[in-house]
Amino acid sequence: MPAMAIGQIIRPAGKFRVGDFVEGILGWRQYVYVEVSKLVPLTGVVRGLPLSAALGVLGITGMTAYFGLLDVGKVKKGDCVVVSAAAGATGSMVCQIAKNVYSCFVVGIAGGAAKCRYLQEELGVLAVDYKSEQGVEKGLKQVLGKRRIDVYFDNVGGEMLESALRRISFGGRIVVCGAISGYNKDKLTPGPYNYLNLISCSASMTGFLLRDYEHRYKEARAKLANWMEDGKIAFREDVVVGLENAPKALQRLFDGQNIGKVIVKVAEPIQDGKTLSKL
Amino acid sequence: MPAMAIGQIIRPAGKFRVGDFVEGILGWRQYVYVEVSKLVPLTGVVRGLPLSAALGVLGITGMTAYFGLLDVGKVKKGDCVVVSAAAGATGSMVCQIAKNVYSCFVVGIAGGAAKCRYLQEELGVLAVDYKSEQGVEKGLKQVLGKRRIDVYFDNVGGEMLESALRRISFGGRIVVCGAISGYNKDKLTPGPYNYLNLISCSASMTGFLLRDYEHRYKEARAKLANWMEDGKIAFREDVVVGLENAPKALQRLFDGQNIGKVIVKVAEPIQDGKTLSKL
Repeated sequence: MPAMAIGQIIRPAGKFRVGDFVEGILGWRQYVYVEVSKLVPLTGVVRGLPLSAALGVLGITGMTAYFGLLDVGKVKKGDCVVVSAAAGATGSMVCQIAKNVYSCFVVGIAGGAAKCRYLQEELGVLAVDYKSEQGVEKGLKQVLGKRRIDVYFDNVGGEMLESALRRISFGGRIVVCGAISGYNKDKLTPGPYNYLNLISCSASMTGFLLRDYEHRYKEARAKLANWMEDGKIAFREDVVVGLENAPKALQRLFDGQNIGKVIVKVAEPIQDGKTLSKL
Repeated sequence: MPAMAIGQIIRPAGKFRVGDFVEGILGWRQYVYVEVSKLVPLTGVVRGLPLSAALGVLGITGMTAYFGLLDVGKVKKGDCVVVSAAAGATGSMVCQIAKNVYSCFVVGIAGGAAKCRYLQEELGVLAVDYKSEQGVEKGLKQVLGKRRIDVYFDNVGGEMLESALRRISFGGRIVVCGAISGYNKDKLTPGPYNYLNLISCSASMTGFLLRDYEHRYKEARAKLANWMEDGKIAFREDVVVGLENAPKALQRLFDGQNIGKVIVKVAEPIQDGKTLSKL
């Protein structure tokens, strides 16, 4: 099963010494043989952060939020930003960058009271509980009033995407990041029935892959690290211990059980925490 | 019924004299009272063209093609461009601009042998007949081979949009101009089932309204007129005579009977053709 992971060298090879950290799509496994030429040294972890931050806030999660919101979503100061799966790893980053860096009016959509409390109390954004009796459509109507959505960062698809399209602003941008609502269904979920709102609002739906921005990872990581130091973004991890629990960890995403980044801890580092400061 | 129209002044008022031509959403009618302050003199017809060109190639049709292809579709020289409703007023303009101005590889989708012949023989582009036994999906596959679509200019929606999304290029642009396949249905047609291709191809779907570009009409009309003079674009009209036939004219669009711009001729100009050269 492929997955982004952090690994540690246990046999010296090339420039790598025992204990060095590497990163990549190392997969669900305890040990892996990788050719030296394909090994990538771990970068992007700053002092004082756990190793796993390289997979989360300073890794694919944080950078997906960064490029998705800034480049694809073209966020501007004061925009109205709505985020689905807002208590998840990427969503919670988007909420914080929008709110604390771009002074946006931010609404997060999440399922259940605990996640909505996290959004409101820890991230300081408005929350819509899609599992509540009210549901997404009425919930959005209530928090937005007559406000239209400038950027909708979509991780979910389906009904949420449709509700957001109903309220998209003139020139609004929909960032198509995922559609978890449909991934586990037998039948494909269609695109939004009201996609012609794109015409009447001169709006756009744009997808992206993080790897399109590989040449700018350094920039993104530096910004994200600065924002962390300034207290503008914080992160939560949902750690599952043991490789044997990896399937359960994945299921947590589909069940919407996680708050923040789901991490599977496969092994303890073979050196103590001090190794980190050498990175 | 609102409709873009060209009118002629029959009672002098303000700066307007009897016989002057005006344009605007004058509607389906023989006579109309409009306040002088709201009257717009007819512009954009060049010598030698019929008055109706101001509604077509130099009017909303040509300008929709112009801004849709250039600004929304961000067409580049040599792009692979696919156009639906390609034998229609807007579609045929898009085909010609893409082919003759931007040297693109152009495929037009249209229904029936007559329209496909028009596309191939008069416009010089490849044609896919969606009414043929082969259908859109196989037809596109055949003419495109392994080529991916850089710009899909969509006037139709539904199955065609889905087929185009299946072949969208990396960074491809879908211009959402209309979705006539769904307008007359009782049930809303959903958005494309495969819209998540936007993610894997870092592609976009963008809607637009011509009036967003009002400040650039002059530029567009000048360019379109130049291209006409250079023989890069030509146009066809599908003229229906008599106001009483306006409903039939509209129906021709939904039935896909027209090639080129559908025009309803309500009355003969009260002055002869020479008036035109004064415009």
